[in-house]
Amino acid sequence: MKILIKGANVLRPDYSTDIADIAVENDKIAAVGNIPESFVADHIIEGKDHFAVPGLVNAHTHASMTLLRSYADDMELMDWLNNKIWPLEAKMKEQDIRIGAQLALVEMIRTGTTAFADMYGPWMEIVADETIGAGIRGILSRGAIGFMPGAMKTLEENVELFRNYHGSGDGRISVLLGVHAPYTCPPDFCQAAAKASVENGINVHIHMSETQAEIKEIQEKYGKRPFKYIEDTGLFQRPSIAAHCVWLDDEDLAIMKEHQVTPVHNPGSNMKLASGVAPVPWLLTHGVQVALGTDGASSNNNLDMLEEVRLAAMLHKVKELDPLAVDAAQALRMGTEYGAKALWLDNVGKIEVGAKADIVLYDMRRPEWCPRHNLVSLLVYSANSSSADTMLCNGRIIMEKGELKTMDEEKILFEANKCALDLVNR
Amino acid sequence: MKILIKGANVLRPDYSTDIADIAVENDKIAAVGNIPESFVADHIIEGKDHFAVPGLVNAHTHASMTLLRSYADDMELMDWLNNKIWPLEAKMKEQDIRIGAQLALVEMIRTGTTAFADMYGPWMEIVADETIGAGIRGILSRGAIGFMPGAMKTLEENVELFRNYHGSGDGRISVLLGVHAPYTCPPDFCQAAAKASVENGINVHIHMSETQAEIKEIQEKYGKRPFKYIEDTGLFQRPSIAAHCVWLDDEDLAIMKEHQVTPVHNPGSNMKLASGVAPVPWLLTHGVQVALGTDGASSNNNLDMLEEVRLAAMLHKVKELDPLAVDAAQALRMGTEYGAKALWLDNVGKIEVGAKADIVLYDMRRPEWCPRHNLVSLLVYSANSSSADTMLCNGRIIMEKGELKTMDEEKILFEANKCALDLVNR
Repeated sequence: MKILIKGANVLRPDYSTDIADIAVENDKIAAVGNIPESFVADHIIEGKDHFAVPGLVNAHTHASMTLLRSYADDMELMDWLNNKIWPLEAKMKEQDIRIGAQLALVEMIRTGTTAFADMYGPWMEIVADETIGAGIRGILSRGAIGFMPGAMKTLEENVELFRNYHGSGDGRISVLLGVHAPYTCPPDFCQAAAKASVENGINVHIHMSETQAEIKEIQEKYGKRPFKYIEDTGLFQRPSIAAHCVWLDDEDLAIMKEHQVTPVHNPGSNMKLASGVAPVPWLLTHGVQVALGTDGASSNNNLDMLEEVRLAAMLHKVKELDPLAVDAAQALRMGTEYGAKALWLDNVGKIEVGAKADIVLYDMRRPEWCPRHNLVSLLVYSANSSSADTMLCNGRIIMEKGELKTMDEEKILFEANKCALDLVNR
Repeated sequence: MKILIKGANVLRPDYSTDIADIAVENDKIAAVGNIPESFVADHIIEGKDHFAVPGLVNAHTHASMTLLRSYADDMELMDWLNNKIWPLEAKMKEQDIRIGAQLALVEMIRTGTTAFADMYGPWMEIVADETIGAGIRGILSRGAIGFMPGAMKTLEENVELFRNYHGSGDGRISVLLGVHAPYTCPPDFCQAAAKASVENGINVHIHMSETQAEIKEIQEKYGKRPFKYIEDTGLFQRPSIAAHCVWLDDEDLAIMKEHQVTPVHNPGSNMKLASGVAPVPWLLTHGVQVALGTDGASSNNNLDMLEEVRLAAMLHKVKELDPLAVDAAQALRMGTEYGAKALWLDNVGKIEVGAKADIVLYDMRRPEWCPRHNLVSLLVYSANSSSADTMLCNGRIIMEKGELKTMDEEKILFEANKCALDLVNR
């Protein structure tokens, strides 16, 4: 399949922009700018007045949890988890996981996300199948809450998921080992997870150092901070992604660097749950390429990565009282190429020859895109994700001129609403 | 003119929601729920799957400055003002003010804003005329920068604007006295402004206590903090709105309360310019009904009030490390009824019998509105303003099913882009 995007404003890897054609052949970008005469497109996408940007990478979310969006807000984290979220999650059935994942996929596609790292379950194979069908990239894990009964079985399910799905969907699906968090996973569980991770060669997805309460609890329980605790269990032997990383010190940073732990910043969730402001400028200064995530729709409350990019550019300025703390380009890199690197996605996150064709086109014929002095500024500080109207992932058209090509949106929204109301009344 | 909105989900003044019809007669809401049989509509708006919310009130902006959107970002405030914004504003012509205002009006209508407080100029009469045509409410002032040559003339222009336009446009236009800020307005200018304000009965629009640098500068210059400085010039004799109010102490609060100064919180601008986090929960606790504003599109970078509502609900949680600091309902009240009160708009900001018919309908047939556990949470934490598809102001339909009824959007966007590029190359 050969696709030509004609005359779009293209975000180049150096963050300059120009009007150029983009030639896509199979899963890759074949040319940008000078299209060879021999390239004959099967399909042409008109790019005029559109801004072509690498697909957004959501490096931490809980897709099926989207069913709980707006169910419980403006609450304390542990009150929210213990009294609202976990009791409801315990009632979830296979069908809830499926429909929740479908709803999340529809929303991610509409908002320009081409890859997401999910930690949820059970029935993550359903999420894998749905993601394969939707056409985007899923970096999936079965989140194990170590202190809950059956946690060891959950770990086995995750290894099973890895064996069955890692590399599936033309390489769009990969599988990580989901270990919930230091405060929910005791040492024996973490050691078992470490063993499974090393023996099977599975990288890890974990929540780390989200709240001050977590730091305090782990220190009281184990006499060390969360990063040291997890390191000592052996769980950082394989590379990892660590969601949140709000409360860090120099020792934590050293552990992250030594073990290739990439922090995933979730500004929306950290603001809404009042977890704190992660030291992102400090991490960037130390050469850590921080990724971005939405977290679950129950703590955000959406899966809109462009909003996270904006918050990443805005929040640290006011925290540091420095208007240059994180600029628009850095924030967008965090939401695209840094995210792709964090999730071990090769050749993803830039629009250049040889890269995977994961591309979003934003329709700029709207007031918030006017005037067009600086397109990166407009995207990061002014536009919202509703101007994403066309998206390719792995060279396949997933959305075109606002129409979803792989999912039945109307049906999914109807069923998701019904399913969610049934769940809360169960 | 009688309009019936049929079967919308309505946000009631107590923040409950239910499905109800809304009857609009001339400029007012005639009934909500039980519509009298005698009410025969000239026009029916289908409200199914829509959320009817009071029109958003932008209590501080600089409309025509929208032409500078994305022209200069990621800079220090004074560097940005001195070297980018002010030199360009000095080159603005009548036509720039007109087209900039048109662009701002299009964006405000699209994003659900029915009233805005503007401080800009010269040629504010053009902004008044454009606002009258656009059909929304404009609370306009000619912003005088006291230390600039011609500031006294600017003050006269503002009084002239008041005489010619206050109460015009079926009462949709009112005029305030625009005094830029303590750090740009010396005592003799403030005293002259105070005199003009009292003699003509004009309320005041001012920027106050935006940055730590301002507090320091005023203290060094006058031996007191900005609020005390302005109070001593006599400028607070009339009620005022004060944009920003980021750095406050108890004495400042006492002055605000004594003189009916309503603070206008601009979270987006304060984040982007790294000004600081205004003590909004503290103000609310002390009974101050804080309003919300976008500030100019050059420091935000849009005029999207729903985004400010969200930031108001999110920023203070993380600042205070308290997930209950400002909840969704409080933030939405700040962006609607508190804003209307701050701008002295009678019967504006609630959907109830007898109120002015300033109503926005949000189309909920989108993934980010699903599932519908709590509509206020969905609006504040999940949706974006692009789902605003129908808007009434003062009983007139300004936008219906995504179509602007009072402005030629395509023409305005084309001209605004041309005009802005011409301006920066002038």
